[in-house]
Amino acid sequence: MNPNRWRLDPQFARDTFMVGELPLARVLGMNDANYPWLILVPRHPGAVEIIDLGSRQQEQLLDEIVMLSQVLKDATRCDKLNIAAIGNVVAQLHVHIVARRKGDAAWPKPVWGAAPARAYRADERDAFIASIRKEVAFG
Amino acid sequence: MNPNRWRLDPQFARDTFMVGELPLARVLGMNDANYPWLILVPRHPGAVEIIDLGSRQQEQLLDEIVMLSQVLKDATRCDKLNIAAIGNVVAQLHVHIVARRKGDAAWPKPVWGAAPARAYRADERDAFIASIRKEVAFG
Repeated sequence: MNPNRWRLDPQFARDTFMVGELPLARVLGMNDANYPWLILVPRHPGAVEIIDLGSRQQEQLLDEIVMLSQVLKDATRCDKLNIAAIGNVVAQLHVHIVARRKGDAAWPKPVWGAAPARAYRADERDAFIASIRKEVAFG
Repeated sequence: MNPNRWRLDPQFARDTFMVGELPLARVLGMNDANYPWLILVPRHPGAVEIIDLGSRQQEQLLDEIVMLSQVLKDATRCDKLNIAAIGNVVAQLHVHIVARRKGDAAWPKPVWGAAPARAYRADERDAFIASIRKEVAFG
């Protein structure tokens, strides 16, 4: 196996779905209908921290975070965005972008570990994916 | 009062201490000795989200996050960095950079709401501040 080949950590397969590919990152959706929730996973082998990326990739990651933040905010009319690179459980570098509403299942707490995930119905999930895809030029 | 003048949200006064000023952000330390924990507060009046900053300021914020992440990692030899812009309670835009160790008070959970804060002794706090200041050219 080529150690330089990027592969999505298999732990993401359990609780996310595919949204699209950006120049640096794969964009996943979290299968939790409590909150509109995107995850960017830079396709950089071995990266765990943002500081593991080169400066050009860091700038690209910022661009992708900013673009998706605006799209998610516009699509959901949320009250607050929560953006975070944590990775204590799944080490592969990934950035959460979560649209929060006052009164949502965890508000005002952060979402991690706050409320049991509520899996999307297929039609809900497809509508969420479509609301993002129609605003983003995925590769 | 000039609405265009930036002022630190008074809620930070309760649980943080001053570390220094960078070109964009004021750097605070969280008064919780469970984890080495810095907070960047961009001096941009009215900003709540990263997307409220202009693109030049977003790039500067990234630069300051990256620089402080490396300094904090080197100073603490932590196992993981947690970087997050949440702001559900204190709306003024701020970015957390937390040095995590396996086995710390919240590991592997995120730090917010996970364990009661443990206030620093004055000498511990001063040593933490000094460990950051000796590596950073604060204004």
